[in-house]
Amino acid sequence: MSEQRIRGVLSPVVTPFKSDLSPDPERFVRHCRWLLSQNVGLAAFGTNSEANSLSAEERMELLDRLVAAGLDPARMMPGTGCCALTDTVRLTAHAMKAGCAGVLMLPPFYYKGVSDDGLFRSFAEVIERVGDRRLRVYLYHIPPVAQVPITVPLIERLLKAYPDNVAGIKDSGGDWANTQAVLDAFAATGFDVFPGSETFLLAGMRAGAVGCISATANVNPGAIARLHATWRSPDADLQQKCLDEIRSIMQSYVMIPALKAAIAHWGRDPAWATVRPPLTVLTDAQASDLVAKLEAKSFDMPGLRT
Amino acid sequence: MSEQRIRGVLSPVVTPFKSDLSPDPERFVRHCRWLLSQNVGLAAFGTNSEANSLSAEERMELLDRLVAAGLDPARMMPGTGCCALTDTVRLTAHAMKAGCAGVLMLPPFYYKGVSDDGLFRSFAEVIERVGDRRLRVYLYHIPPVAQVPITVPLIERLLKAYPDNVAGIKDSGGDWANTQAVLDAFAATGFDVFPGSETFLLAGMRAGAVGCISATANVNPGAIARLHATWRSPDADLQQKCLDEIRSIMQSYVMIPALKAAIAHWGRDPAWATVRPPLTVLTDAQASDLVAKLEAKSFDMPGLRT
Repeated sequence: MSEQRIRGVLSPVVTPFKSDLSPDPERFVRHCRWLLSQNVGLAAFGTNSEANSLSAEERMELLDRLVAAGLDPARMMPGTGCCALTDTVRLTAHAMKAGCAGVLMLPPFYYKGVSDDGLFRSFAEVIERVGDRRLRVYLYHIPPVAQVPITVPLIERLLKAYPDNVAGIKDSGGDWANTQAVLDAFAATGFDVFPGSETFLLAGMRAGAVGCISATANVNPGAIARLHATWRSPDADLQQKCLDEIRSIMQSYVMIPALKAAIAHWGRDPAWATVRPPLTVLTDAQASDLVAKLEAKSFDMPGLRT
Repeated sequence: MSEQRIRGVLSPVVTPFKSDLSPDPERFVRHCRWLLSQNVGLAAFGTNSEANSLSAEERMELLDRLVAAGLDPARMMPGTGCCALTDTVRLTAHAMKAGCAGVLMLPPFYYKGVSDDGLFRSFAEVIERVGDRRLRVYLYHIPPVAQVPITVPLIERLLKAYPDNVAGIKDSGGDWANTQAVLDAFAATGFDVFPGSETFLLAGMRAGAVGCISATANVNPGAIARLHATWRSPDADLQQKCLDEIRSIMQSYVMIPALKAAIAHWGRDPAWATVRPPLTVLTDAQASDLVAKLEAKSFDMPGLRT
């Protein structure tokens, strides 16, 4: 793993698929390269990447392709948390071997109502089995989807047991009070907190967060990264307002197909719209509507077409 | 796949682990053999099997071990539904090649609030990719855990598109009204309905179900299979009451560690208690308490010790 901590704005990179629904490594590398050019890091294999619709092998192959294409693993925080302990260990060890800055780790999410003891044991087993103090784990709190939360007491216990490995959290709960509580409890000790949306980017930076990891950074990376870079400037609140407008349009559709529809439109590449089941593409009417609403805000994706 | 349909009582076989948390094929084969001796079929790799805590490779290896040990695949309905389309296809094709009677298929369960269109497409892709009319898919409805339901309109659409392949359902919703609605809509056409617990075995048989698939069949297989075989007899209601008493005791603990604690005790084999995270074993006090309550009901697991 890289010596330098990964911070700033990251994108759960959307995963392109070919017409046979196999992952499309060429479009994937191209999109990742564009995100990096916009100063956005690569939280590949997140929720908005349809990562849980990919096998472990498919994820590893895609990560290998990024590295082989010369993209900097110090700018990568791939998702590696699966339901199965053995899959999580395998993906985490693979990401580490690839030199990634860290890994974003979902809790095992099939069983509901599991105890903090059980979750502690899950993360602990992965860390122990990978067995390398350079490993940096970013905990992934996304109760609306995973339904299995990562609580403050659990973070505290993990930090105490593995201070070298437990590096931060992505908080995608959508509840600022929780993000604030995590910041208050741990940010001062060097635990890196990433709100899970740019909606909380400015509030987060003011309260000690280190950036954000946001789906919308797939389509609006430059503007989000600019707010991160200039959050102390006088126009920061105005920047936040503009980001919120774009986010709000995207959120009025199912997020993943909406992200892909926008990339398909501004990239003039209709194949990008493809999603794996159980997701479905936007209807033509929805896609046109989305584009019209974004155009009304002078939205653009500069440099996306190559 | 076998020509004969699999019916009656099946058990989501609990998966034994060694002390290093790797699956223990020898104890697994032994337990499966015992279940078959009690007239209970093998719905291996279900929720209570900790199947989602196993990698695809671990599941396939365990299934291969059952077949290699000479257990009859016509009595097997392994779980093959994963979050990732490619994993589900791989496991389903593997089960089919092994000659299993059918497969029990969870919907992809990471994304919540997905449409019936998306779920239809998920099952359709698997059926199309496996591409064999002998494939029998049993849909797995377990909204308390998967959080993604299989609705009556979805079943209808799947049956219409794939009448040869869509063979039945396991309904683990715990809501008799739903089971009744599914029975009313489809049982007469030869769609096999298995309530997900013996709690509904007698009511189910009276309404056209073909058996049940129940966690508790791991520990109380003989008595549950007897009710299935004799549900028209005068003592059927009494039998159901006795089953309910045992079920009720098991349900007052976390089910999977409780099943394993009972097997560890009556099999005199403490290693059986091991679970994979995020689950945790019962405390010693809980395990003693469970055993005492079961003993008070003259509970036994005849023939478990070999």
